[in-house]
Amino acid sequence: MSETKFGTLYGVGLGSGDPELMTVKAVRILQNTKIISYFSKGGENGGKCGHARNIMAEYITQNHEEMPLVYPVTTEFPVSDPRYTNLISEFYEQAAQAIAKRLQAGEDVAVLCVGDPFFYGSFMHLYRRLSPQFSCEIVAGVTAMSGCWTAAKTPITWGDDVLTVLPATLPEDELLARLKNTDAAVIMKLGKGFVKAHRAITQAGLLERAIYVEYGTMANEKIMPLAEKTDDNAPYFSMIIIAGQGRQI
Amino acid sequence: MSETKFGTLYGVGLGSGDPELMTVKAVRILQNTKIISYFSKGGENGGKCGHARNIMAEYITQNHEEMPLVYPVTTEFPVSDPRYTNLISEFYEQAAQAIAKRLQAGEDVAVLCVGDPFFYGSFMHLYRRLSPQFSCEIVAGVTAMSGCWTAAKTPITWGDDVLTVLPATLPEDELLARLKNTDAAVIMKLGKGFVKAHRAITQAGLLERAIYVEYGTMANEKIMPLAEKTDDNAPYFSMIIIAGQGRQI
Repeated sequence: MSETKFGTLYGVGLGSGDPELMTVKAVRILQNTKIISYFSKGGENGGKCGHARNIMAEYITQNHEEMPLVYPVTTEFPVSDPRYTNLISEFYEQAAQAIAKRLQAGEDVAVLCVGDPFFYGSFMHLYRRLSPQFSCEIVAGVTAMSGCWTAAKTPITWGDDVLTVLPATLPEDELLARLKNTDAAVIMKLGKGFVKAHRAITQAGLLERAIYVEYGTMANEKIMPLAEKTDDNAPYFSMIIIAGQGRQI
Repeated sequence: MSETKFGTLYGVGLGSGDPELMTVKAVRILQNTKIISYFSKGGENGGKCGHARNIMAEYITQNHEEMPLVYPVTTEFPVSDPRYTNLISEFYEQAAQAIAKRLQAGEDVAVLCVGDPFFYGSFMHLYRRLSPQFSCEIVAGVTAMSGCWTAAKTPITWGDDVLTVLPATLPEDELLARLKNTDAAVIMKLGKGFVKAHRAITQAGLLERAIYVEYGTMANEKIMPLAEKTDDNAPYFSMIIIAGQGRQI
């Protein structure tokens, strides 16, 4: 009786958006793995779209099999809503099972991750479910925040600066307290939290130092001082950076 | 009268240590730039050594001209000592002038940076001096911390987790206060600060969650639970990571 060796699950960081910021390792693994999987909002072409797919698009060949994982819901409910949690939890469970089937058949699966897989990555929800049973290899990537402060030509931390990374989904009073108590800050996942983050930054006296970056290192990148932004629209792929002012010798 | 066009200064992030974690862009720029410069502690081969050089070693050819920038001092004085500040400040000034000469002659210069150039990077001290006068292009890289939490197979932030990045050079009471008030933490630049960081982590009740990573993603990588580390030796290229415990749906 022959035994099939299980496949390997790859979590591949693609970097912040510019395809050239993919690592040599990411390119190698994606060129050598048939099944590429990625989260997608659905829509056109059976969900074969989205930021992750766009970043590696030039490397996709006819030999690849694409396995989009289409979210049942994105921003329709707040994350605190139990309907969101239930839907998303069930979705991750099913996605993990679909990938597990391929791994059990001895096939490798590479999951594409914008940024770095282990830094606020959706992939982590698959990794948590699959890593106890399957061999996993994770490829670190250039984080969205590195991409953004570089695009903004803004060194983020000097000397002994403390950096605080804040999801804009936090309550406004917590954002304010933490902004008042750090040297450098990155506020991620803006979306609907933009107005709240903007108010907290202003109240903390940091408006003049804040830079807004939208789609950093991607084709549609926009960068401006937060003080000059005249509307409250901010996609999920946007963030605000506030550089530290530490030791500049 | 013909005018020489100035060269471009590249600040090239090389990633956390594994040469395969260099980005495609970093490789392209380094293959196309004759003068490669990097900080070095001196010693063997006229200072042609060090972590940055090691990472790109396989791409160095006879067509490259190496320009090591040899630190006059590393850990002999605490950074608060004015002798350190004076020596280092003068060193950065001279290094910037040496690079400026080449740029003025119309030559491009690529400065190699371990990790990401704008995240606690020594390169920032050159950038600050040269960017007002010269065209600069910065290439974001995989940060040392991304490399380390990936090597440790440890997703660092979930859901709304706040991440605090702390240099171990901070006073112990500040480390303690900040560790008590965050979801996830990375303590960088350990070196002599290891003992202090270890005590602060223990007092904050986080010892069981802390992972020690030395030379993450490099050939001599070491990873262990901090609680199992039996000595106090920690090189500069080591850090402690404490993962958040946020929303795992």
